[in-house]
Amino acid sequence: MLPVEEARARIIAALTPTAAETVTLAEGAGRVLARPVAARLTQPPADVSAMDGYAVRAADAVEGASLALIGAAPAGRPFEGTVGSGQAVRIFTGGFVPDGADAILLQEDATASGGSVRVNETVKAGRHIRRRGLDFSEGSEVLPAGRKLTARDIGLAAAANNPWLAVHRRPRIGILATGDEIALPGDPIPPGGIVSSNAHALAALVRVSGGDPVVLPIAPDDTAAIAEVAATAHAFDMLVTTGGASVGEHDLIQSALGGEGFELGFWKIAMRPGKPLIWGRLGRTPVLGLPGNPVSALVCAVVFLIPALGKLSGLPGAPAPTRRVISGVALVENDKRADHLRAILAVDAAGRMVATPAATQDSSMLATLARADALVLRAPYAPAVEAGAEVEAILLGELGV
Amino acid sequence: MLPVEEARARIIAALTPTAAETVTLAEGAGRVLARPVAARLTQPPADVSAMDGYAVRAADAVEGASLALIGAAPAGRPFEGTVGSGQAVRIFTGGFVPDGADAILLQEDATASGGSVRVNETVKAGRHIRRRGLDFSEGSEVLPAGRKLTARDIGLAAAANNPWLAVHRRPRIGILATGDEIALPGDPIPPGGIVSSNAHALAALVRVSGGDPVVLPIAPDDTAAIAEVAATAHAFDMLVTTGGASVGEHDLIQSALGGEGFELGFWKIAMRPGKPLIWGRLGRTPVLGLPGNPVSALVCAVVFLIPALGKLSGLPGAPAPTRRVISGVALVENDKRADHLRAILAVDAAGRMVATPAATQDSSMLATLARADALVLRAPYAPAVEAGAEVEAILLGELGV
Repeated sequence: MLPVEEARARIIAALTPTAAETVTLAEGAGRVLARPVAARLTQPPADVSAMDGYAVRAADAVEGASLALIGAAPAGRPFEGTVGSGQAVRIFTGGFVPDGADAILLQEDATASGGSVRVNETVKAGRHIRRRGLDFSEGSEVLPAGRKLTARDIGLAAAANNPWLAVHRRPRIGILATGDEIALPGDPIPPGGIVSSNAHALAALVRVSGGDPVVLPIAPDDTAAIAEVAATAHAFDMLVTTGGASVGEHDLIQSALGGEGFELGFWKIAMRPGKPLIWGRLGRTPVLGLPGNPVSALVCAVVFLIPALGKLSGLPGAPAPTRRVISGVALVENDKRADHLRAILAVDAAGRMVATPAATQDSSMLATLARADALVLRAPYAPAVEAGAEVEAILLGELGV
Repeated sequence: MLPVEEARARIIAALTPTAAETVTLAEGAGRVLARPVAARLTQPPADVSAMDGYAVRAADAVEGASLALIGAAPAGRPFEGTVGSGQAVRIFTGGFVPDGADAILLQEDATASGGSVRVNETVKAGRHIRRRGLDFSEGSEVLPAGRKLTARDIGLAAAANNPWLAVHRRPRIGILATGDEIALPGDPIPPGGIVSSNAHALAALVRVSGGDPVVLPIAPDDTAAIAEVAATAHAFDMLVTTGGASVGEHDLIQSALGGEGFELGFWKIAMRPGKPLIWGRLGRTPVLGLPGNPVSALVCAVVFLIPALGKLSGLPGAPAPTRRVISGVALVENDKRADHLRAILAVDAAGRMVATPAATQDSSMLATLARADALVLRAPYAPAVEAGAEVEAILLGELGV
């Protein structure tokens, strides 16, 4: 059985990011830049006022002085003249500082009457002026390639005058649920069967993680049916299967895929839930075979599929970030499989995050997984710990899943 | 000037959630349930095996015994007969436990040969059996109204046989940027003008926060132009304006909106960046007037718009969660305005999160905001603190913005 970290590293190493596409600025949020964004202008484009007040010469603007008001410079309408000795120009935040002026007299430090303004507080040269290029300069890189764009980044790209962005294509992920016993929600359920939950849960996870999911029709446990789907795998950046990965069933998937030139990477991971997992390649298309058990499938998706989607999207493919939290209960010594305990988070009186694993960690309990806020990580052979000890956990809310 | 908390509370109190709509399960992730989801079946539907092995009578399955193999019960194909004394049925994970059997003999504890199986380890009654209804029972609520659905919840709703979900409509948010001096990216820039970044940054923020943004054409600083847009406000669940909120400009927005029956709530908040903010109502439509300054607009959006979108979407409208982090630098005593310092996060050797505010907190610096990971919160009159002190911060990554 392969350790989790090694399995993940092999998956990430085998994947390459999708090619670039051009999208509008409005479509860019959440996408990963394939090329850097450069500033196409300098911001601010000139020295501008940081406050509402009067553009003055600092040498004149001493307490008690009276200055002649010769014009106004609101944002967007620069004053065309020059501020001479003994003169002032009304200015507003963002207004260009007129030629001749070298300081801003705040409006709360001035009294305007008729055509003049009285200085109530001596100003300092350079005060309340934002220098040209304070935010960014034309030609400089404002956003690097590989960055996953936030709403703030979209604002920055816009301010730097970029209506278009080059981003990695969303990886298109085929999702294939297999099994004679499963039916889609609302469809007739075969005797002894269950309702298929994996495909749509995985589709939601793929979408929130930056991918473009394609849910394929359920394939029965039948070599020909699975091979038929496998023959279309070239349409996807990755094919994710669920079911057919456990002992015995493993042969089914492998023999079904074999006809299409399936190359097995590995298929057993030292983890719980989720031991049976298939990793391989069908022609050019990477294949991730998740367990059929819904809890195992989703935990494996957090551990392997989300980093894989990251790598395909142009990110490093790092594992989910972990945080140190306090265990709300004592934990027994772990066995050889890395465990992922479904846990509820709370904040204690000292402001620390406390994770309390559900008492029953049965991998069939989807309701427990849905209610969980975190997966508490227990490394292979991790020693027993007391309640109150620090443990590492993946916060599911941070992943958006 | 109104305190931040009071302003936010007044905004949240004035908003009501959108009505419900029916969406497919596949569209449900990220939406907020308007009605609870009930289980339409019991899961597991019968007692099932938790492992691969043999369904046996515990009384017979003592070490050394040999049991007659009378059939198989894979998942989805229940064994129709009864396990009698001295008999066993091959069973796989998820297979229904046949009548007569009361325990599972693990396959690793058994040796099968021909038509019989030898017990190598005595089994206990009830072992490795998942009881009917362990996950959920028909008629029980599996997901409550008001829950924002995760990928895991979609799996649970599917497993409980729900192809449709009743969720709150995505609030439709009109976004209006005003100003003579602004141009859209790629459009000609007027002399002394700047490129408009707020509308598309806010649209991205609205989308990631569960809303449906409609970016309106830029309105010049002109009462008639703004009034024309205002007359269409009834189409939106909220109208967000940006620009025209500062001293002087305030009159413009207010007089422009006044003709349409604008009712002002409040317009000055004791916060930095972002003091000028308009809150009111245009007929039935709530109006949030954000500052024109991009950094102020986005910080105000984090503080007020995201909770407002939450409330409109059917959530409580809670403020962004804060975390206690370590300040990487000494912070001076704060003045009367709640401050939101743009900061970079790092993790120190002890695993603690350290937030280091940018040295220059000028509200014109969009690049600094884009690079920030967190907003360090400084309450009005917060005392000076040393580097290494605990402070509260909003982690922008957690908000997805």
